[in-house]
Amino acid sequence: MPAVSRILGIDPGTQRLGYAVIELGGRRASRVVGPGMTYLECGVIRAPRTKDVVERLFVIATSLGEVIDEFDPGELAIEKAFHGKSAASALALGQARGAVLLLARQRGLATFEYAPATIKRAVAGHGAADKSAVAERVSLIFSLARAPAADASDALAIACCHAFARR
Amino acid sequence: MPAVSRILGIDPGTQRLGYAVIELGGRRASRVVGPGMTYLECGVIRAPRTKDVVERLFVIATSLGEVIDEFDPGELAIEKAFHGKSAASALALGQARGAVLLLARQRGLATFEYAPATIKRAVAGHGAADKSAVAERVSLIFSLARAPAADASDALAIACCHAFARR
Repeated sequence: MPAVSRILGIDPGTQRLGYAVIELGGRRASRVVGPGMTYLECGVIRAPRTKDVVERLFVIATSLGEVIDEFDPGELAIEKAFHGKSAASALALGQARGAVLLLARQRGLATFEYAPATIKRAVAGHGAADKSAVAERVSLIFSLARAPAADASDALAIACCHAFARR
Repeated sequence: MPAVSRILGIDPGTQRLGYAVIELGGRRASRVVGPGMTYLECGVIRAPRTKDVVERLFVIATSLGEVIDEFDPGELAIEKAFHGKSAASALALGQARGAVLLLARQRGLATFEYAPATIKRAVAGHGAADKSAVAERVSLIFSLARAPAADASDALAIACCHAFARR
């Protein structure tokens, strides 16, 4: 893989979308995984429930576009879609993914997908780790004072998983 | 609804996407539905099967962007998503829909959704019409010499349904 300085991790959804940006080869070293990976930002983009799907996708894409503008990541890491859920939730997840994948491609980011178990194994040591274990572990990896919100922690775990995979 | 001159109908998919553009208040009258609706173009955008989902979505969005550039439609009509299929196909359909809905919103089109039975009833008179009946009927409505390809006919039916709904 070519050199990249920043990774955008995304946990997609049409009502809440978690995102995280990390830098490779940053100045600050992580105590847990060693030097070379720095936390920049993570958060949750919320789309108004009262709006229809088109507006929700647009709000998410616009906010995500602002994150891309600010941090200029070269790669997007996203959870591989699984179809274990109902068809209705698969459709909603698909719509959010489709918008995010198109936006990333429009903005020149290369996309990498990881299965949920791979992400959990990468950050928490085993593929069946629960959300709180993942949140705790990414806080430790990036020396954060407090665990981020659930969707933001997941996005950070996805970005972290991709950083490990690039090594 | 505000006045609009052109409607883009879309039958979404990640491998094949049907599209159709019609004009309201056009010069040529339809023999079946009366004056005020003119066929401009319909077709199928194919995304290479060998590419991954990101590239397929990007190919589709790029081609659809060219159709929007050429015809400058003000409104998008699309089939309402139904979850009757498997979760895997709902996810794939969702991804295509998400990319199309975002693109349309980015380009300033207002989106309108219609249930499959509503579309069939609008063009073929009953909600259980099969694909060939829909294709035959839209050919008749728009005085086409030959029925378009299946996905293109569906897109034309969707555009036509929206034109009727606007009246």
